[in-house]
Parts: sequence; C-alpha cells; structure tokens
Amino acid sequence: MRPIRDILEAQSVVVIGASRDQEKPGAQLLKVLKDVGFAGRVAGVNPQGGNVFGVPLYPCVRDVPFEIDLAVLLIPPRFVPDALRDCAVKGVKGAVISAEGFAETGTQGATYQEDVRAILKSSGMRGFGPNTLGLVNTQTKLTTSYFANSQMLASGHIGFAAQSGIFVGALLRYLSSLTGLHLSKGIGLGNKVDVNESDALSFLADDEQTKIIGLYLEDVKDGGRFVKNLKKATARKPVLIIKSGRTQAGAKASATHTASMAVEDSVFDGIVRQAGAIRLHAIDEFVRTLKGFLNMPLPAGDRLAFVSYSGAQAIMSIDTTIEQGLQAARLADATQARIGRVIATSSKTKNPIDIFPDWLTHGYEKTITEVVKALLDDRGVDGIVFISFAEANPEVYQSLVNVVQADRRKPVFVSLLGDSLDKAACERLLDAGGLPCFDFPEQAVRVFARMRQYAKRIKGTE
Amino acid sequence: MRPIRDILEAQSVVVIGASRDQEKPGAQLLKVLKDVGFAGRVAGVNPQGGNVFGVPLYPCVRDVPFEIDLAVLLIPPRFVPDALRDCAVKGVKGAVISAEGFAETGTQGATYQEDVRAILKSSGMRGFGPNTLGLVNTQTKLTTSYFANSQMLASGHIGFAAQSGIFVGALLRYLSSLTGLHLSKGIGLGNKVDVNESDALSFLADDEQTKIIGLYLEDVKDGGRFVKNLKKATARKPVLIIKSGRTQAGAKASATHTASMAVEDSVFDGIVRQAGAIRLHAIDEFVRTLKGFLNMPLPAGDRLAFVSYSGAQAIMSIDTTIEQGLQAARLADATQARIGRVIATSSKTKNPIDIFPDWLTHGYEKTITEVVKALLDDRGVDGIVFISFAEANPEVYQSLVNVVQADRRKPVFVSLLGDSLDKAACERLLDAGGLPCFDFPEQAVRVFARMRQYAKRIKGTE
Repeated sequence: MRPIRDILEAQSVVVIGASRDQEKPGAQLLKVLKDVGFAGRVAGVNPQGGNVFGVPLYPCVRDVPFEIDLAVLLIPPRFVPDALRDCAVKGVKGAVISAEGFAETGTQGATYQEDVRAILKSSGMRGFGPNTLGLVNTQTKLTTSYFANSQMLASGHIGFAAQSGIFVGALLRYLSSLTGLHLSKGIGLGNKVDVNESDALSFLADDEQTKIIGLYLEDVKDGGRFVKNLKKATARKPVLIIKSGRTQAGAKASATHTASMAVEDSVFDGIVRQAGAIRLHAIDEFVRTLKGFLNMPLPAGDRLAFVSYSGAQAIMSIDTTIEQGLQAARLADATQARIGRVIATSSKTKNPIDIFPDWLTHGYEKTITEVVKALLDDRGVDGIVFISFAEANPEVYQSLVNVVQADRRKPVFVSLLGDSLDKAACERLLDAGGLPCFDFPEQAVRVFARMRQYAKRIKGTE
Repeated sequence: MRPIRDILEAQSVVVIGASRDQEKPGAQLLKVLKDVGFAGRVAGVNPQGGNVFGVPLYPCVRDVPFEIDLAVLLIPPRFVPDALRDCAVKGVKGAVISAEGFAETGTQGATYQEDVRAILKSSGMRGFGPNTLGLVNTQTKLTTSYFANSQMLASGHIGFAAQSGIFVGALLRYLSSLTGLHLSKGIGLGNKVDVNESDALSFLADDEQTKIIGLYLEDVKDGGRFVKNLKKATARKPVLIIKSGRTQAGAKASATHTASMAVEDSVFDGIVRQAGAIRLHAIDEFVRTLKGFLNMPLPAGDRLAFVSYSGAQAIMSIDTTIEQGLQAARLADATQARIGRVIATSSKTKNPIDIFPDWLTHGYEKTITEVVKALLDDRGVDGIVFISFAEANPEVYQSLVNVVQADRRKPVFVSLLGDSLDKAACERLLDAGGLPCFDFPEQAVRVFARMRQYAKRIKGTE
C-alpha cells in the first residue's frame, strides 16, 4: 500500500465540489489554500467549469492537466463513489472524503461506504474519512478544511490524529490560540474506511517535524497492528491518547457518531500502558500535558520541590504528589543554607519553601532567582513547582524565565492565582518564555507525573 | 461565649500597629477601609499618636474615645499579648491577629499563642488567627486585609472560611475577577487559637446574605462540634469543603504551616459524606461547583441530555456521566418529534443531540432555542449540557440565555471550545446571563453530579 506520507506531503490538490459561489465550502477551501500560502498546484472540479477566486475549475477530475497527489471531496455521499472512480482513473494518490452520511447514519450510508472501500482497495488510492475535515501539514501549509486560517497553520511540533470531524477543527483553533501549541501534522480519521490510527501513528512516528503525538480515538480497527505501531512510536516520542467510549453508554453514542465498534476499555488501557503511551481522559489534561512535554526536559526522578507564597497551595500540591506516586523532595543541607541567604525563617527553607514574607527583604526577583537556582543544583530535586500570584506587572517573572532558560536540567512549572486578567498577562509572558504556566499547582504535579512515566519508559527501552 | 456575629458585623474598627508611614500595612488598611466605603467608626493605635490618611491615631487602644467592636493587630508576635490585654481592658469585642510567627514556627511562638489563648479566654473577647488576613463582610464593606479593593468587596452570596493566610486573599482576588462569584462573608481562621471552623460554620449557616458555604481546612479542632454544625449547615445550604493534608506528607507540611494536627483522611471523608456536605479536592473544581449552585436550580433526577455540535465531546461527556453514577437521558418520542422540526437527520434527534449540520437550515439561534425548549419540557430530562464552539460574535448565545432565564425548572450548562479570546468573550456573556459556562463539558457533568448529591441530601432531610 502507498504510504500516507505521499498524501500528507501533497504537491498538488484538487477540490471536487468546488462551487462557483464564493460562500460555499468548496470555494472557500480554495481561498483558504491561497490565504495560508500552500505552495503546490491547486485546481477545482465543477460540472460547469469556470473558475473561482482565480482558480480554474474543470468538469471532471480526469480533465485536470497535472498529476494529483490529493483530491478533497466536498460532495454529498451519493456522488462520492463515482467521483472516486474518476480519481482512480486519473491516478490520484489519496482522497479526503469530508461528507457525513455514511456508515454512521444507516444502511444506505453503509452501502456508499462499502463502495468507497472497494474502489480504494482496487485502485491502491489512500482514503481519509469519510466524515472528517481531513489533513493539515503546517510545513507545506496544506489544509483540507475550509475554516482553517494562518494562525492554525503556524508550524509546530504536535502531530495529532483524531477520529472525529468538526471537533478536530475546534480543538485546533483552541490550541493555535494558545502560545506555543502548534501542530506539525493533523490527520482526521473520521469513519476510517481506509486510513486508520495505525497508519497515522506510523507516519507521525517517522515524521521529523513531529516531537509529540496526540490521538483522539473512539475505537481501534486492527488491535495487533495498533500495539506494534504504538510501541514503535513511544520508543521515539511521547504519545498521548484520549480514548472515549470508555463506558457502554459512551460506546453506544460513539457508534452512531462514527460507526465505531467498542473496545473493552480495560483491554485498551492495558495496551496503552504496556506500550508506554500515556492515556488522558480529557482535553484540558491533554493540553496541559502537551505544554509540559514541549517545553521541559524529562524528569530524572520522582522528587518534586515546591516554592510557594502561601502554604495552603503547597500542601494541596504535596497531597497530589503523593497520590500520583511521586515524592516531596528532601532538600540537602547545602541547599537550605543557600536558600537561607534570602529566606531568614529557617522553617521556610525546607520543602515546601515559603518565600513570604522574607522576599520583602531581598526583593521578589532576587529571592525567587536564588531559590530556584539552589533547587536546580540540588541532586535530590527532580522537578520544581513554583506557586505564586498573578501580578499586575508580569515583568516580575522575567527573571524566573531567564533562570530556567539558562538551565535546562530539570522541569520547572509555574502556577498563578489572582485576578484573571493579571493572570492571563503573566501566563502569556511565561508561556512565551517556554515556562509552562498552569492555573493550579496540582495540575503541574500531574503533568510532571506523566512526564516521569514516559521518562521511565524510555529508560526501560534504552 | 460571645457570638462571632458581633465582630463580623462590627460598627467600629481600630487598627493596632497603624503606621504614620502611608506605605506600611497598618496605614494601608485604614486607607482601604475608606476606599471601599466601610461606614463604621475607624481609628488607629500608634505609640506616637498623630494621624494617617486623615484617621486619628491614639497611643493606646484604651485611649480610643468610642466603643470598639473589632481590633485588627498588625504588630509582631511579641507585642501581641500586651496589646490584647489592653483590648480586654477597653472591652473590645473581638480581635484579628494577622502576624505569622506563633505556634507554626516553634516553641517561642507557641508560648505567645498560649498567652493569647489565655487572655481571650479570661476576657471573653473573640480572636481570629493568628496568621490570617482576617475578615470580610461585603454587606458592611468591612475588611481587615490591607490589599483588599472595591471589586473584592462587591456583595455576593458565597460565605467562605479558610485556615490560611495569604491564600484567602489571592483566592478572593481571583473569584472577584470572575463574573458573579462574590463573597458575602470571608473568615480567615489561621492558627485558630479561638475562632475555628465550627464557629464559622455556625455563623455562615445563620447568615442570610450567605447562600452557599465554602471551607478550606487543614485540620478540625473539635470533631463532635464540627459534625453537629456541619449537619445543621447542610440542612440549610450547600457546604463545599476542600481539606488538604490528605496524605501524611501533606499533613506534615500543613503542621509547619498553621500548626495543625492531621485528621485521618478517611475519617474526615466519612464525616463530610454523612453530614451531606460536598468535598472537593481542588480550587478549580470548587470554583466551577460554585458557578453551578449559585446560578442553577437543583436537579430533580440523574438524567442528563447533551446538545452538541460534534459527537466527540458528547461521547466524552457521556463517559463521565456514567462514571459519576448519573444517566444519559432517554428522550420521549414527543421530544424527538419536536426536535425533528429543526433537525432533519433522525439519528441526530436522539441523546446526544447533534445540531450539525442541520442548524444551517433553520439558523443557529432558532435551532438551539427549539432544542433546549423541547428538552426543558421533557420529564425524562433532569439537566442539559450544551456543548458548542466559541464564536467571534458572542451575541449568538443571547437567545440561549433568554430561554434559560425564562425557564428555571432544570439546570443548564454550557461548554465552549475554540479560539481562547472568542471563548472568553462568549463566557462573559453567558456568565453575566447566569448561565454557567465551562471550558469542557465533562466539568459541567461533574458539577451536575455534586448538585444532584446535594439535592438528594436535602430531600432526605425534608
């Protein structure tokens, strides 16, 4: 079978169902490809011919005067099989089938889907979907979604594959509006008539632009191949997986959504654990975990140190540390002595370190710099969670960014409490400096735990 | 013993340790009381006399020419016992002792704390702290914190008591920067030399301004009294509790923070459950749960309906629904028929209801209005989670706000995914309309579960 790399790195795209009405999706996609700067050849297919946004439209895909790597089908299900047959004749390498209305809606749709499968199989063409927004390649600025924009096409390191349609687009829009969370490649799997999670994993594992892989799944098509590809992928880069349909009711809803078949959840859990991948249950945790992996080195051990402004949040964090199977670091005497130079109250130089009110003596920036430096040098500390408050002037955190950027030996996380607007400003500064900032320190502890889990896996496979 | 109501409703406040230096906390607090509009009498105590910000300073509290309901002690631990003796002679009703450096720091501090305890006991004066920012009463605009502001003193319905110092201030600043989350009363307990969680509970249970009670605890002083007061409080209003020091390591850190003694966590858990209170493990969950209780009616049953724009998030939510011991609602035929008038695809009129792409036919506002109205009328539905996307124009959600404001029979929650700035704008509109908006639908499901838990408790005590 042709590797999906040929399609994800497409040098030419044809939109089948390219309307001459500029408002329609098929026209909009052509405009988007121009706007985001896709450099390959582009054409449209429309029975009436003509052109839209300056792009020529041909009556049939066979009439397109160049070789086609990727055809995007923005047409209703009943027209899809014939269009795909034309694609096969033309020698198109791969197709994205966007429309809903296939196996997920009943017998008529299932018939269309079987036709699609047969055409793909006999022609060797690869097919994404149906029921998907398709592909994104931020390296070449390829997208098959008509509501993409330049921000969403900014180049990053997250390779994401998902078995859902619109959700991927919304998630991508969310991620790309946050600092530093951009995709390398995005792969919409939809109903997975051909390309499935195992193909996506294999591609993303090899892809150099991709440093971390995210998957959203509702089922798994070929368990054996999935396990093999997952193991191979985790040996190279972290793989974060959200799998829904954990419960019977969820699986039932999933079946009417993308025609998936349930996998026994405990079996799936076991596969993920055994392969060294990381399973997360919700998107917020997925996003936070990405922030940790993308910005910070992997932890060498289980021991966390906390620097706080108030004991309460540090105590809540230590509870979470223990519950996650980690430890609160015991600081070396030398470390406590160094910290003692800026914090006079000796009980506050132990872990959790409390900088209030002692920082008033030496100033906030000097105090936090000295404390964090001492912790970075302590061999008994594997990670640092800095718990503080949102400041009206975010610049007070620049010194912390500088320290962490200059010393990448251990993961350092920040959480800030306070006025929500102040917090947003501080978070922008910290995120831009590559210092992962969270709303609450317990979230940082959980991210550290996932990173530690992966670090152990990598060590085990070395 | 004098009820703490006398102090929380103080008509006169004296700040002991009122500096003539305008930058110092003791001067700042006098300025804050003016700025936020505290209407009672105010004076300061300073050995040199004089005045600051136009407020007269007296050499000793005994020299103050009016009766004192509340004295705020912003002086170091070693001066506290003598100042308190003067307060006792003067007949002060209650004192807030702000300073750190008591039992939490060692034997010298413990001695001061015992002196304080003895003076309070023999005089009948009530004492808050030490190691606390003290009190807030948004009805009278009373505060004992020198970094309060008018926004933080806006009147609301959350009565909050916490065993921690600065944390309360930061949390309050955070809450008050969000729409609709304002305090009625705030009580800082600190080391709890006198006033403890049971006093606070009893007061907040009786307080008419308070509709919901929040507690942050590290330990419990008198288990028997706590259980009794907690039961009494939950019979009247929801009580949300965060208790840290759940683990040994957490409890140990807690001991050096507010000199608390650990309570066996499973015992505490049992007490909370038996009393019908709600235990939460983190501040973010606390804040979300507040949003639900403050804005929505209690659910009459366990059955949730989901309206979504994409199946993936609905499926994740149904998983959480089942895991929380709730059910996905089965819609009545009549409901499906009504929904069918705006959603033609019949598989999409079942729970979870999928409005995409059918809304394109009737418009977004009409579609969501009709669907939500049908669900509000369905007796098999006890709550609704509306899962959608952040829109550049938040006004599209006004019609949803209108429907929900006109029909308060069932709790309705919203979650939005998309560009973070768009999301913030939509969330502001929804929050202002009293429609709780969350980042992810699973969060809404968990809030519904806590509200249902409380609804059952109330039914059991009727």
